[in-house]
Amino acid sequence: MASEKEMRNIGEAHPMKSGDGLYSYSNNSYLQRGVMNAAKQIVSEAIVENLDILKFSSSTTVRVADLGCSIGPNTFFAVQNILEAIELKCQNQGLDSQIPEFQVFFNDHTSNDFNTLFSSLPPNRRYHAAGVPGSFYSRLFPNRSLHIVHSSFAIQWLSRVPKKVVDRSSHAWNKGRIYYPSAADEVVEAYSAQCAEDMARFLQARAQEIADGGLMILIFAARPDEIPHSQLVANIMHDMLGCCLMDMAKKGIVSEEKVDMFNLPLYHMSDKELEAAVERNGCFSIERMESLPPISSTLQSLVSTRHKAQAISFHVRAAMEDLIKAHFGEEILDQLFDSYSKKLEQEYSLFESAGTSALNLCAVLKRKTMNC
Amino acid sequence: MASEKEMRNIGEAHPMKSGDGLYSYSNNSYLQRGVMNAAKQIVSEAIVENLDILKFSSSTTVRVADLGCSIGPNTFFAVQNILEAIELKCQNQGLDSQIPEFQVFFNDHTSNDFNTLFSSLPPNRRYHAAGVPGSFYSRLFPNRSLHIVHSSFAIQWLSRVPKKVVDRSSHAWNKGRIYYPSAADEVVEAYSAQCAEDMARFLQARAQEIADGGLMILIFAARPDEIPHSQLVANIMHDMLGCCLMDMAKKGIVSEEKVDMFNLPLYHMSDKELEAAVERNGCFSIERMESLPPISSTLQSLVSTRHKAQAISFHVRAAMEDLIKAHFGEEILDQLFDSYSKKLEQEYSLFESAGTSALNLCAVLKRKTMNC
Repeated sequence: MASEKEMRNIGEAHPMKSGDGLYSYSNNSYLQRGVMNAAKQIVSEAIVENLDILKFSSSTTVRVADLGCSIGPNTFFAVQNILEAIELKCQNQGLDSQIPEFQVFFNDHTSNDFNTLFSSLPPNRRYHAAGVPGSFYSRLFPNRSLHIVHSSFAIQWLSRVPKKVVDRSSHAWNKGRIYYPSAADEVVEAYSAQCAEDMARFLQARAQEIADGGLMILIFAARPDEIPHSQLVANIMHDMLGCCLMDMAKKGIVSEEKVDMFNLPLYHMSDKELEAAVERNGCFSIERMESLPPISSTLQSLVSTRHKAQAISFHVRAAMEDLIKAHFGEEILDQLFDSYSKKLEQEYSLFESAGTSALNLCAVLKRKTMNC
Repeated sequence: MASEKEMRNIGEAHPMKSGDGLYSYSNNSYLQRGVMNAAKQIVSEAIVENLDILKFSSSTTVRVADLGCSIGPNTFFAVQNILEAIELKCQNQGLDSQIPEFQVFFNDHTSNDFNTLFSSLPPNRRYHAAGVPGSFYSRLFPNRSLHIVHSSFAIQWLSRVPKKVVDRSSHAWNKGRIYYPSAADEVVEAYSAQCAEDMARFLQARAQEIADGGLMILIFAARPDEIPHSQLVANIMHDMLGCCLMDMAKKGIVSEEKVDMFNLPLYHMSDKELEAAVERNGCFSIERMESLPPISSTLQSLVSTRHKAQAISFHVRAAMEDLIKAHFGEEILDQLFDSYSKKLEQEYSLFESAGTSALNLCAVLKRKTMNC
């Protein structure tokens, strides 16, 4: 068991692009929002069905945390939805006069732009807001202090790139690629093992922090168990970015060695992998696990393939820009994402044929009433 | 009673200079630290004597808030001191094995640089940290959720400049000055009334937030009741800054009208004024009220008057720069503080003769066990 200090150092930061510019996360997170709208109903129902309000009657404060909240606005919509569901539940139970006070904790890495987050907080919010800096792969909150934990499109980020995939002496060295879908089995296994290790830490920390009967709602880009890694839309998308980087290496714009040493700290867990992690942990029951439409469904409203390709490119850039900048330098960004847009447009048919293999999952976990 | 939304809009931000540059608050807050070192013993004793640890045994988390924390490092020292005192108290009572978990809330205005604050958090801290944006003249925390509230050199900042002092049609119009010490009685009264109104809001909010028996430790630049406003060192300091601005107006560098419309939102309460506010509120008892050495005592280690003057000038600049910049523009800053340094040096004897009229107070309040 790692000490608390060691645990704090776990988890590299992968901040979304800050501020509110063209490539900022706040202006390029509307794709996630389409999926979150679909999740809204599931989250509401899960709270109404599973949260035991009477258990909280001795405490007048319900504490909610959004893990990996980034800088908004999606986190504010998610929180609002959760609070409305709790209020609805109170009303359903005839507890109108006992609607609790809410304290909402917005968590992300220390390097997240909390200044922007705080300045965007809804002015007429009905909750006390707090920001909590740190990796959710470590402890962030006091024992048994949270009632609802929410996390949307965050747990697919690993705490780090698996060591083996950037180790030349390893069979899992991922030469010439930045991701695992079309790589050797050893590379996939290294990614999968890192995810299992991270989920063990994540669930262990949350089991300590969530009160008995409390809920955890996890929304994440997943892989249907029967679909091979190489056919998952999100994976194809990220593999294409790797191809663009290799093209730039062939043209001498970046060194091939640098591309070899760069890997994305992302992994798309399957529903089975989540179930296995929850079972190993032992402190949670899975109350619901539902598919959400893929992010690409949000693109249907865009008319041309070019616009769709550009929307994906902006979306990936908002999420990846800081990572790529840190490794390759700022100067390659525009060229890389220009060629990425073009590649996405040229090969857009790949996404359409892979349509059903795209998947987002919404899992609702409940903290068991037991010490573990 | 104002609605929660109205309350949120109360309290202008007066952020300390952010970042870690020459004039930053983080590099110019060592004067306060001298006073805080003196407060350390009082705070420790107050906690050991007054905090009823057994009352908290049903909860395993002790919640501490620092209000007006700025960006560090003073807030981290203050918090560390509080936590050590609680641990000492546990040990004294033979509760070594029951040392609670700590959750520490760092509060300041939304415009405070929380990014810098979070990145400076002590890496080996023994507490769960959270940032809480908002004015402490409104509600910030859930009902009865805090055990210790600390605030150091923050409550002398008013929620706003009293309206009358910038109203040409009022008898309290403060023409040609930026502060009240040498102004007409009406101006002093307007400042004093604003302070009383702010303290009423402050104490009302805290009475709701602090658990029965919880402590509030307030350290602030005060005025001994028997000393006239015009003879208080801090007031002389700020009046001199006003003189420098008027000198610049006479030279045509800034408009006199702009100086007329600029007033500092600061007030140095006397011990009697605090006592009256606490009595009007009714929810707290004053357990201790002790004098701390004036900030100027920290300057004794500096050899020359020039160095002392410059240290004060840097200190005032760190606190006031953003306010002055917002009203007069950035371009006057260097010239203003250069002339301020010189004026402080020329008239340094004023501070030495006024030595004993400088005062900082440390008040320890305890939340009464009653609904009010």
